[in-house]
Amino acid sequence: MKRRVYLSMKSLKEAKDLFFSRFGSGLRTGVETVQTEGALGRITAEPVFAKRSAPSFHSAAMDGIAVKAEQTYGTTERSPRVLQLDRDAIWINTGQPLPEPFDSVIMVEKIHQIDEHHVEIRAPAYPWQHVRKVGEDIVATQLLLPQSHRVRAYDLGALISAGVFSVKVWERPRVAIIPSGSELVQRKAIGEEQELEAGQIIEFNSTLLAGLVRESGGVPIVHDIVPDVEESIRESLKQAIESDAHVVIINAGSSAGSKDFAVHAMDELGEVLVHGVTMMPGKPTILGIVNGKPVVGNPGYPVSAALSFEQFVKPLLYRLQGSSPPKRDIIKVHPTRDIPSKLGMEEFLRVNIGKVGAKYVATPLPRAAGSITTLTRAEGIIRIPALSEGLSQRDEVQAELLVDEEDLLNTVVIIGSHDITIDVLADEIRRKGYNIRISSGNVGSLGGLMALRKGTCHISGSHLLDTQTGQYNLSYIRRYLKGRRISVFHLVLRDQGLIVTKGNPKEVRGIRDLARGDVTFVNRQAGSGTRVLLDYKLDQLGIEPKSIKGYDHEEFTHMAVAVDVLSGAADCGMGILAAAKALDLDFIPLEREQYDLIIPSGMLDIPNIRAVLETIQTQDFRERVKSLGGYDPSKSGQLWMEVEGG
Amino acid sequence: MKRRVYLSMKSLKEAKDLFFSRFGSGLRTGVETVQTEGALGRITAEPVFAKRSAPSFHSAAMDGIAVKAEQTYGTTERSPRVLQLDRDAIWINTGQPLPEPFDSVIMVEKIHQIDEHHVEIRAPAYPWQHVRKVGEDIVATQLLLPQSHRVRAYDLGALISAGVFSVKVWERPRVAIIPSGSELVQRKAIGEEQELEAGQIIEFNSTLLAGLVRESGGVPIVHDIVPDVEESIRESLKQAIESDAHVVIINAGSSAGSKDFAVHAMDELGEVLVHGVTMMPGKPTILGIVNGKPVVGNPGYPVSAALSFEQFVKPLLYRLQGSSPPKRDIIKVHPTRDIPSKLGMEEFLRVNIGKVGAKYVATPLPRAAGSITTLTRAEGIIRIPALSEGLSQRDEVQAELLVDEEDLLNTVVIIGSHDITIDVLADEIRRKGYNIRISSGNVGSLGGLMALRKGTCHISGSHLLDTQTGQYNLSYIRRYLKGRRISVFHLVLRDQGLIVTKGNPKEVRGIRDLARGDVTFVNRQAGSGTRVLLDYKLDQLGIEPKSIKGYDHEEFTHMAVAVDVLSGAADCGMGILAAAKALDLDFIPLEREQYDLIIPSGMLDIPNIRAVLETIQTQDFRERVKSLGGYDPSKSGQLWMEVEGG
Repeated sequence: MKRRVYLSMKSLKEAKDLFFSRFGSGLRTGVETVQTEGALGRITAEPVFAKRSAPSFHSAAMDGIAVKAEQTYGTTERSPRVLQLDRDAIWINTGQPLPEPFDSVIMVEKIHQIDEHHVEIRAPAYPWQHVRKVGEDIVATQLLLPQSHRVRAYDLGALISAGVFSVKVWERPRVAIIPSGSELVQRKAIGEEQELEAGQIIEFNSTLLAGLVRESGGVPIVHDIVPDVEESIRESLKQAIESDAHVVIINAGSSAGSKDFAVHAMDELGEVLVHGVTMMPGKPTILGIVNGKPVVGNPGYPVSAALSFEQFVKPLLYRLQGSSPPKRDIIKVHPTRDIPSKLGMEEFLRVNIGKVGAKYVATPLPRAAGSITTLTRAEGIIRIPALSEGLSQRDEVQAELLVDEEDLLNTVVIIGSHDITIDVLADEIRRKGYNIRISSGNVGSLGGLMALRKGTCHISGSHLLDTQTGQYNLSYIRRYLKGRRISVFHLVLRDQGLIVTKGNPKEVRGIRDLARGDVTFVNRQAGSGTRVLLDYKLDQLGIEPKSIKGYDHEEFTHMAVAVDVLSGAADCGMGILAAAKALDLDFIPLEREQYDLIIPSGMLDIPNIRAVLETIQTQDFRERVKSLGGYDPSKSGQLWMEVEGG
Repeated sequence: MKRRVYLSMKSLKEAKDLFFSRFGSGLRTGVETVQTEGALGRITAEPVFAKRSAPSFHSAAMDGIAVKAEQTYGTTERSPRVLQLDRDAIWINTGQPLPEPFDSVIMVEKIHQIDEHHVEIRAPAYPWQHVRKVGEDIVATQLLLPQSHRVRAYDLGALISAGVFSVKVWERPRVAIIPSGSELVQRKAIGEEQELEAGQIIEFNSTLLAGLVRESGGVPIVHDIVPDVEESIRESLKQAIESDAHVVIINAGSSAGSKDFAVHAMDELGEVLVHGVTMMPGKPTILGIVNGKPVVGNPGYPVSAALSFEQFVKPLLYRLQGSSPPKRDIIKVHPTRDIPSKLGMEEFLRVNIGKVGAKYVATPLPRAAGSITTLTRAEGIIRIPALSEGLSQRDEVQAELLVDEEDLLNTVVIIGSHDITIDVLADEIRRKGYNIRISSGNVGSLGGLMALRKGTCHISGSHLLDTQTGQYNLSYIRRYLKGRRISVFHLVLRDQGLIVTKGNPKEVRGIRDLARGDVTFVNRQAGSGTRVLLDYKLDQLGIEPKSIKGYDHEEFTHMAVAVDVLSGAADCGMGILAAAKALDLDFIPLEREQYDLIIPSGMLDIPNIRAVLETIQTQDFRERVKSLGGYDPSKSGQLWMEVEGG
């Protein structure tokens, strides 16, 4: 079986150097002439010079009278002069041409009208006073726009004014996009309601890439889907090369073979410059040159396809128009948790970014390159260098913004214990029409309170049981959020219990059974609400942690615990019903626990926070949560208590 | 004669409040359905939900073998398990569908292939391990895009992937643009080479406004030019109101009457909300409402037209699409000189902005509202509040950027004594293809050296004579630029002399005549190179300044001196030949003086500075300078000396 091997993976920088050194800075599309009215957004292919002067005649710059300045010399306050209208002077308004032989304008405010035919002045005028002279704005032959200038609306005005009615601009670069993959079906070929067969995928990368081409000022030419057949791929590459496209993109299919086919075809017809780049997503990028034309083998996963495009094709398209891509805005963000990253790979981490107080905080989205929504949902991208093993939540790092900085104000950051109802909230709040994103970070209940303390979240999700009082969260808030006013809102009551192997072969019935000796347990990390609950239960029953096999084996999420149980690594663990249901395991309910949203009282006036509280009170939200099983949302959104920390 | 009166001028804020309160936040264009492929850049009219889940089938997320997880339970390093291919497991590649009954993937790296038909594993798999599950990226019914979202390329991918093949978006707002003015000629009606008659203006505001409409996502509908006839204007406003346009703009002609006609027409057909705004440029803006449609009477001067558009029409067009205009980037700049401004008017000052060292410095462009090139040449706009009398060069003020921040690096700031050859340089450097702007500030030679000292310019233009040594500039640099290495390059030798009344009736022949008693002189300000030269000459000849009539009358530019002579306020003054020629005065040459470019040596490596030096050495530059008269550019660009200040 043929395996994909990246024998000579290049770093992003090496790959760019190799690619762009072959397509020198002089590389351009052709020149075309467009009517000035249609030149908006186009890029000038040569300097543009004025053909006419503007204004083209002398005109009054003020309302008043036009005079011959010479005739006014010697006039003073003491020796005023009377001018006869329509002989020595005429009334003139701003913009009107200055008729011969007049060469000067006296403002209406400086004139004393004696009668219908006479005015008096008390100061001399000098030639060209208050006159817009020929060429005052534009002199014929003057340079109006330099080469490689993107034409704006203002420029259109200046061009027409200067008598330039057509402009030479660079042709928009044409980009052939070849989607390949036997699993793909053209979206035009299926109805909106039509079921797909197993293994079929609606081809959408070409639409994504076409959009990216347009955003870079290019013209996409989307080819039909090519099946994963070496000869077909070679043939369609050949066709695209022979077309009038300036750049060719082959978007790889998902089969292992298809990437090889693209490499082989490029190698056979031309030259492969780069095969594999140490960027993530985007690793399977192929860069080549066929008949002098740049050819890019674009990875099949949509996020890889987009990020690879932005590193290689986008700069090329701008270069072809004598320009360079606009820089994305960069802001400094604080990661809401530590984020490990693979050494040797430059990672493009998609993140939700929200503003909490004066700080921007960033929460990573899933890293799956197949998930296009990690791009649509992201507010920014953090680039983690190849030589880094990841980010620490103590670092301040740079993020490239995918949205306007203003949009960052629309993110509500919820950090703490993860619960599926937070996802439901995120969807429901947008469904209600709010343009609000929920950025949720999963660091455990105590971690959430710490995040509130550090000011890296708006809301913390928490279910910490105070074993002394039997109350949830309050005493923890008092201890960890000293000196702050905090409001505690109910989100849900949820079933905590023991997740056990399907069929419960070890016949676990409750906490007492954990100490039996023949039962292997899997624990949650210290600081999680679930761990607190367990330790409380053990204490109540007088069970020594030491007596429990597997007590030291800690996992960080409900799902990780469930997976351990499923795989046989443990017989049981503590967690929520939803996790047991997800992996079809059995569940022994122990406790209906309280999961709250903890919000600094000072934030309750923020409209986005109010929208969150409003949303969790809706019937729609409650019904969706109830249908998950194991949840009681009847008090969702109720203010339970306001607490003064410390 | 009817005069324009702004009886009830409103402040910009009042005008906006009045206007936008009448066009509430719910105001929208209609909804239209577009194919997803064509939705790029459009704004969603309602939330968009996924129609399909993606992926639509379970697939491998890794290359390896597909297995039934259950069959692998209990496998360990010590008790490995052998699986038979095509029965217990099958080879699978990333992206391939997971066939029944398999539910898990084991990575190829974890597998030991025994023979063609058998593999060995040493750890268990859990269900859904390395599997991309149905709906992992998108779940049908999930919210994909909220309402009022501008569709990006990424979104197109997500939409198609989610089976959303068409999208409801807001119609682009249609804007009727009515150019009015009897002086206007349609650009299509004249040939590029055809001469205009006196008083005729090529109509270009409609192209400018159409471009601005497009930049705001709207569709311009440009009407034919309407003459300045009240009935015609009323008629065409009526037509536009009855058309399918969402907004109507009447662009005023230059005649005083035309604005009144627009007001009358709006008043007759509907309601005038605002007539005159205390903004500059843009004062003659009229805002009204006819048949529920917003109507804007846009001023005739192009800069006024553009700035008024941006304050009133642009926000309206975004609002009609449920959106708001992108904010311009704001940076802090240091004015290169004091800039007075009219109290009571909010001024939009166009400025050149350059980066000198770590600071951005701003030099004002001409304020004429008729000069469209003040917009095309500007890098930014400084808003001077109505209650301010202007800016001080000691202030740091905000400027809205009209260009990318990066482009600011393309400005070379030259401050000091003004000379026409600097304008020639500014044009020639762009004519050579450099995308470099010269921002020149006119503060006199000594002011230029001070600007270098303060770090607010790259280059200073100077012609300061050392009366001790007879050398130019060197001793001043030593004195005022202590501790810095400075390079002095020749720009030109130019003729300084006495500018005298045409025909020289007072028969002035030289400096000695200034003390004659019957000759009135006009002086330049202290610190100017010209004043230094005069004082030197007086000293040489033993003439007391006191003996010169008008010695205390100071002007700040060569042109101001020439104007005083022309108007009879003085019989003569000192200045350059070019100023005398410009006003057709006589000139008595006294000195061929040296005008140099003073550049900190540390800046000589900056490519833009090198481009300046290269340009002034070209034959093209020298010939243009020579043709001005009174200049000797033969040494232009020669390094004269490097000086260590202090």
